[in-house]
Amino acid sequence: MAWFGNLIRNSAFKSLSSSSSIRTKPTNPHCLLASFSHFTTDATHHNQQSHLPTQYAGLEPTKSTEKPRVVVLGSGWAGCRLMKGIDTELYDVVCVSPRNHMVFTPLLASTCVGTLEFRSVAEPIARIQPAISKEPGSYYFLASCTALDTRNHVVHCETVTDGLNTKDPWKFAVSYDKLVIALGAEASTFGIQGVKEHAIFLREVHHAQEIRRKLLLNLMLSDVPGISVDEKRRLLHCVVVGGGPTGVEFSGELSDFIMRDVHQRYAHVKDYIHVTLIEANEILSSFDDRLRRYATKQLTKSGVRLVRGIVKDVKPHKLILNDGTEVPYGLLVWSTGVGPSPFVKSLDLPKSPGGRIGVDEWLRVPSVQDVFAVGDCSGYLESTGKTVLPALAQVAERQGKYLSGLLNKIGKAGGGHADSAKDIELGDPFVYKHLGSMATIGSYKALVDLRQSKEAKGISLAGFLSWFVWRSAYLTRVVSWRNRFYVAINWATTFVFGRDISRI
Amino acid sequence: MAWFGNLIRNSAFKSLSSSSSIRTKPTNPHCLLASFSHFTTDATHHNQQSHLPTQYAGLEPTKSTEKPRVVVLGSGWAGCRLMKGIDTELYDVVCVSPRNHMVFTPLLASTCVGTLEFRSVAEPIARIQPAISKEPGSYYFLASCTALDTRNHVVHCETVTDGLNTKDPWKFAVSYDKLVIALGAEASTFGIQGVKEHAIFLREVHHAQEIRRKLLLNLMLSDVPGISVDEKRRLLHCVVVGGGPTGVEFSGELSDFIMRDVHQRYAHVKDYIHVTLIEANEILSSFDDRLRRYATKQLTKSGVRLVRGIVKDVKPHKLILNDGTEVPYGLLVWSTGVGPSPFVKSLDLPKSPGGRIGVDEWLRVPSVQDVFAVGDCSGYLESTGKTVLPALAQVAERQGKYLSGLLNKIGKAGGGHADSAKDIELGDPFVYKHLGSMATIGSYKALVDLRQSKEAKGISLAGFLSWFVWRSAYLTRVVSWRNRFYVAINWATTFVFGRDISRI
Repeated sequence: MAWFGNLIRNSAFKSLSSSSSIRTKPTNPHCLLASFSHFTTDATHHNQQSHLPTQYAGLEPTKSTEKPRVVVLGSGWAGCRLMKGIDTELYDVVCVSPRNHMVFTPLLASTCVGTLEFRSVAEPIARIQPAISKEPGSYYFLASCTALDTRNHVVHCETVTDGLNTKDPWKFAVSYDKLVIALGAEASTFGIQGVKEHAIFLREVHHAQEIRRKLLLNLMLSDVPGISVDEKRRLLHCVVVGGGPTGVEFSGELSDFIMRDVHQRYAHVKDYIHVTLIEANEILSSFDDRLRRYATKQLTKSGVRLVRGIVKDVKPHKLILNDGTEVPYGLLVWSTGVGPSPFVKSLDLPKSPGGRIGVDEWLRVPSVQDVFAVGDCSGYLESTGKTVLPALAQVAERQGKYLSGLLNKIGKAGGGHADSAKDIELGDPFVYKHLGSMATIGSYKALVDLRQSKEAKGISLAGFLSWFVWRSAYLTRVVSWRNRFYVAINWATTFVFGRDISRI
Repeated sequence: MAWFGNLIRNSAFKSLSSSSSIRTKPTNPHCLLASFSHFTTDATHHNQQSHLPTQYAGLEPTKSTEKPRVVVLGSGWAGCRLMKGIDTELYDVVCVSPRNHMVFTPLLASTCVGTLEFRSVAEPIARIQPAISKEPGSYYFLASCTALDTRNHVVHCETVTDGLNTKDPWKFAVSYDKLVIALGAEASTFGIQGVKEHAIFLREVHHAQEIRRKLLLNLMLSDVPGISVDEKRRLLHCVVVGGGPTGVEFSGELSDFIMRDVHQRYAHVKDYIHVTLIEANEILSSFDDRLRRYATKQLTKSGVRLVRGIVKDVKPHKLILNDGTEVPYGLLVWSTGVGPSPFVKSLDLPKSPGGRIGVDEWLRVPSVQDVFAVGDCSGYLESTGKTVLPALAQVAERQGKYLSGLLNKIGKAGGGHADSAKDIELGDPFVYKHLGSMATIGSYKALVDLRQSKEAKGISLAGFLSWFVWRSAYLTRVVSWRNRFYVAINWATTFVFGRDISRI
């Protein structure tokens, strides 16, 4: 840090350089190094830790006098709910994820058109589990996991910088006492060419940002002099592929945006904008028949074209259906369900039907010690005799909660450290009880299906009351008070002033 | 539009295809074309309009029976204030700008660290002048002006799509009756190598977004195991070049963010983060001596290092001062003032000292008919005997307001159309009266200097009261009630919950 001193000595204001106030408190670098002594920061340590590859720095295995370390891969519903529930008196928590926040996915569709702001649906991990930013042994690392070494209880990671020229990717390793894999799933493209290149998924905040930027861009471009009527229609044709809750909610939000905001703010082009929802089977297939019919009627009424079709090919400005129909589009949103990511597929662990990481009824990966998997990346092994649970936020959240309880129990019983939980009684296995499904369809209307399964009987509601239930239910589920406050404010502002159309 | 019909015929749900509700109201393309008949949409029109290049479509000259058209280039303080003031009973307004919103620049520094949200400081043009989205002859075009043809009263434009693969750039022309050039200025780099590549300016919302993303990225990267102490310090060294109000306000905001939020949310790395403000001369040179000394003392007290130096060269991770000192940085923000943009320089119009577009006392470009220039891109011609006004928001805003009044007066007197205002009495010329300067310096402190010039006597305040004046003054100046509400809500939330640290 010689340059710091030089900078001050050589260049400070003359009137100030004699004053001590220009310097911040002097910090002894050796002191700082000492407090991070469990970091391997130079080559001389490497020979002593034979299981860490020599080119890596990392977090060493914990000593038996230290708190055991839970490493969580991922920051979605399952990982975040788990971290929230972990007793940080018992464990240090280390989260490795390329994203420093959780996305409140049920409200993501609303952010694409400005009903809600992006930040209102993003919850920083440090707010979910404050120990991560304060406790000396708990960390959040902005990184991807690149390999698992279950024999040595180590995960290998690499930092993520998404193109910002600030630091080359940095490799490091983290030893764990307990490992929780909560890596989620990836949007399915069914191998259709052009989907990844030309369609936008709706799973992360940056997807919603891209949709909003593109929608506003197309609205403005279509108003430029000399654009042909066909080209205007093309630019303003919003196509949604996939009639699950996400696709339907996004279509509903879009039609609300068109009916209220486009008609007012883009009056010149309002007659050219259209929404088409393409689905191979039925929309909202997991919902009650009556609700499905209601949703179909409502969406059609608000101008959403429902088309039954299978997409064969996606080109830059048009997609092609199986029957050869060409569908020009300006915006293409793809939400046809999810499947395991390439990294999950590559893991040398037993798999459940569907290629997810196989777990037993206690969410353990049974072939190895101290490894658990939760959420969309995991599924019951065939040997459990249970069916794989659907990829839903409520499944992930319930699993995260259950596993935090289980880990706390193990920790209290003295089994927190690596390879020390073999004889501990785990208690009840995880049992999933479906609480029902909700989806909004625009125009202050929603569906609420409280049946426990597709075949069961139970309460199902549709209309304004459901919409009110939908809003209230999600508002109370938003994790922090800060975001709860912002979601309420956003809703109120949208109601009073309309949606914001600045393209920033 | 045959594909629309086909899509429905071939692919619609069987149960729905017989119902008429799936189709939106049929629109006759010929009808639509007819209502846009002043657009040149095909080649057959071109021979009749000899002054429009044959490859262009565009807005034709207005007829004497139509409203005259004011074309505004730019959407900054000057352009937006002008559009707000234009009487749309007298004129149609057409705005050409690569940005569909105005940025409330005095509050931009606060958005970099999350004190305010980005959208709270962006005001859509359509909210400033609603006619643009509603009136049949008023438009906003997302485009850059590429050439002026003052002889034929035409501006040539090209659409801007910033890399989104939605449409190739599209050229068009717009005829004007009155042209207002309000293109603003560009950040000065003084020809120093590497500034454009490695430093971030602070003039647009996307700059603030980039700063926020990079700052949060560096905070997270510096916490990764194995990063050396020197590298931690480098990543967390925030360097601001330029000690004008923007540089000082940003430094103050950064130190507030560090003292409150970094200490709480990034406790592991809090001792490594530092802010250095580099200025060649004095900071806040336009302010009263007493205020300058106060600011210097306050900034130093909150940990900002003030360094007097001249930057010679900027490399990816370090900058080099004139005396050879190397200053490693993780974040480099550049705010050393502004100068004319290459487009303004390229215009074949008389220039003021400093290379701005030269105007007379009525803000006219005197050598041509019906062209005006306002804001940072314009300056008094030497022949007026007046000095060029500083590049300040309050100058631009006052000029925009004055010119809207002048144009309304001309329009009422029947001189709205091209080449028809020669004999109209213009009345009083523009006179600028400086209302004083304000700057916040962090820690709930600000400077308010109400003197009319550097030499004059007058009231000057510093401290918490000034900070209160600063906040109240700007809150009342925010253009829309929506954003006024959001700014107040953002301030309150920051106070209660701290700043948001989700990196979205």
